[in-house]
Amino acid sequence: MSEVTALLLDLFVIFVAAKLAAELFERIRQPPVIGELLAGMLIGPYALGLIGTPDEGLVRAFHGDAAAAQEAVDLVYHLVAELGVVVLLFFVGLETRVADILKVGRRAGAVAVLGVVVPFVLGFMLMGPVLGRSQLEATFVGAALVATSVGITARVLRDLGVIASKESRIILGAAVLDDILAMIVLAIVAGLATAGTVRLLDVATIALQAVLFTAFVAFVGTGAMRRYGLHLDRLKMDGAPFAVALAAMLGLAALAGMIGLAAIIGAFLAGMVFAEAREHFELEQQALPIYRFLVPFFFVITGSQVDWRLFIAPGLITLALSVTLLALLTKIIGCGLGMLGAPWRNVAIVGIGMAPRGEVGLIVASLGLSLGAIPQDLFNVVVVMSILTTLSVPPALRLLYAGQPETALSPEDLADQAGRLPDM
Amino acid sequence: MSEVTALLLDLFVIFVAAKLAAELFERIRQPPVIGELLAGMLIGPYALGLIGTPDEGLVRAFHGDAAAAQEAVDLVYHLVAELGVVVLLFFVGLETRVADILKVGRRAGAVAVLGVVVPFVLGFMLMGPVLGRSQLEATFVGAALVATSVGITARVLRDLGVIASKESRIILGAAVLDDILAMIVLAIVAGLATAGTVRLLDVATIALQAVLFTAFVAFVGTGAMRRYGLHLDRLKMDGAPFAVALAAMLGLAALAGMIGLAAIIGAFLAGMVFAEAREHFELEQQALPIYRFLVPFFFVITGSQVDWRLFIAPGLITLALSVTLLALLTKIIGCGLGMLGAPWRNVAIVGIGMAPRGEVGLIVASLGLSLGAIPQDLFNVVVVMSILTTLSVPPALRLLYAGQPETALSPEDLADQAGRLPDM
Repeated sequence: MSEVTALLLDLFVIFVAAKLAAELFERIRQPPVIGELLAGMLIGPYALGLIGTPDEGLVRAFHGDAAAAQEAVDLVYHLVAELGVVVLLFFVGLETRVADILKVGRRAGAVAVLGVVVPFVLGFMLMGPVLGRSQLEATFVGAALVATSVGITARVLRDLGVIASKESRIILGAAVLDDILAMIVLAIVAGLATAGTVRLLDVATIALQAVLFTAFVAFVGTGAMRRYGLHLDRLKMDGAPFAVALAAMLGLAALAGMIGLAAIIGAFLAGMVFAEAREHFELEQQALPIYRFLVPFFFVITGSQVDWRLFIAPGLITLALSVTLLALLTKIIGCGLGMLGAPWRNVAIVGIGMAPRGEVGLIVASLGLSLGAIPQDLFNVVVVMSILTTLSVPPALRLLYAGQPETALSPEDLADQAGRLPDM
Repeated sequence: MSEVTALLLDLFVIFVAAKLAAELFERIRQPPVIGELLAGMLIGPYALGLIGTPDEGLVRAFHGDAAAAQEAVDLVYHLVAELGVVVLLFFVGLETRVADILKVGRRAGAVAVLGVVVPFVLGFMLMGPVLGRSQLEATFVGAALVATSVGITARVLRDLGVIASKESRIILGAAVLDDILAMIVLAIVAGLATAGTVRLLDVATIALQAVLFTAFVAFVGTGAMRRYGLHLDRLKMDGAPFAVALAAMLGLAALAGMIGLAAIIGAFLAGMVFAEAREHFELEQQALPIYRFLVPFFFVITGSQVDWRLFIAPGLITLALSVTLLALLTKIIGCGLGMLGAPWRNVAIVGIGMAPRGEVGLIVASLGLSLGAIPQDLFNVVVVMSILTTLSVPPALRLLYAGQPETALSPEDLADQAGRLPDM
């Protein structure tokens, strides 16, 4: 068996594990993304060991140097996972017009900002001053608590048939803003991890860089796309508009990485720029199969990095549960503050609806791990927090909606929403 | 810049080079696949050196071992190219029903068989007895002369507006059979490369293995798909039928590789099995974006492996041109023999139409190179042969069709054909 055949076999095992887990979790009415993570934990090197280790042929190709062969396998896994998450954020970007963000009202803005500030500050305080972790570690945990997972929230609301309700629209609008804020926070912490300490000038520089890069691509790119985007089909090559969008995805991802931002920020912005032309060129329909093929690799590979053995260490389970509780409470309090004046039930729905962290918390955690900014135990804590916040939201939302008449939806609303929401 | 960012940048450069080349070649009315190969030669390590070498960060990750870092980059490139060609053959398989192959008449069968036997035998004789190369090298060159590129042939006929003519149907039917025969030949030579010599028992074993694997997957898989395939949408997970098809693609590719066949044989068979359910689940529409994203990597990376410097060696250009001439003549003679009795013009159209080697010759050559079965100079000869046979066919076919009234097509024919032919 050649080295490449061995890697193809790994990809097959990962893909099948992801899809079996997704099927199982659909049947027990839980988010498939959780199943994919758990599948990764199960087949990864810390449990069954079905993936992630070099076979004999690969070790031979490195002249018997097992450490170098392992490094090469890690590089391949890292690249495949990165491609998956780049495609994920590109797809989320395709569903997010700059205009959608600009027209969401003060309400969604307040929910988003307070829903980012409160978890970050309290998360940082818990890890730093209270538990005595380093500033960098506390910053990463705070950042991992920041972002709501749009995909999971939307999916749950859709399953409940309330996607067009007023609370749902506030949640969706706030979640988009929240994603942007989370990306700036992510850019800041990624930069800090390289610089090593938290200095105000660094924060300002990186924030300015993130804001400028984001604003330049979002507004100049969007303006150019509005003016010239429809001319893309003048190109002669097969599938030209989609090819240009994919090139922008790879190019802006690489560019973001080169100037010190996270690659996914570039991919998200590429998607948002092409959101202006998405209906005309059916970009979402074309991106969806690539999403379905590549995105599961990110979640399974991320899950496979959880080292179960660390949970045996005393106190880690307590820490994980504390961080999870903090993650739930701070999001409910922060977003609830943004909803002040609304009926209590709507406050609760928005607060709970913003609580699942899903993939974004995992992105922060795996970035922190790969940069050496957080140790393995905190990575595991964040993974547990992501899983538990996500798992707790569907039943809580069902409870809040129980006995309420379902919001009446026009077929147009349903079709519109069905086309806009990612299926995760 | 992290190692993964550097690799993302490489993927961006490859993808943009592929698409720029495709656009240029569309405009000069030549097959885009040729442009992608030439783009790879241009940006590869033997020319501009924009791709294919590890950056400083990666060398550091391997503790300064530049050779190990290069090996890791080669592994990544090899895997990305392999994924591209696996997707290509899966897509071609999706367009090929077992029934399409079974119902093509004696004519297409004769064209296919003679179009495989004559080039293989004369190619083997030229390299072995005449030029004194080893049996293994002669076998690989013979095998590289065997296969017609369905995609390129179909694309040219479609551009000429004669896709529904009688000659075109013979070419298309024969090309499908030819692909199957070429895959068996490929399986044989891949096995021989491992065994080292040409022994009748080996050939018989490998041929039997290839035939059994092919027949089992094709007939049992197709039967199962016909009986149970339409139940695939009973699965709860998002996009279930397509996910199962992709899992079969990866799984049969890995399985084929594990039992000593080429991975692409498994991918092709997976596609052919799912061709039974392709309309019902819109599998081709979903596979096309993945094709457009991943397939160009195979051609650019393959092109980047051509070492220009070897062409300075005296005699190599002569050898390349001789093999190209042989490739053209043997295909025209072999396929022409299968057409005996038809008007001379139809014989010529079928003979010329079967001549482009395109990707399949390159697959054989890169397999031979990676297995160490052929040296770099023969790899370059085969690449030149693939390019020149492909480049010479469009003008020759245009000449043969010049002044002829275009075949009248019904709209149904056009729609049917448009849906069935890959856009390369």
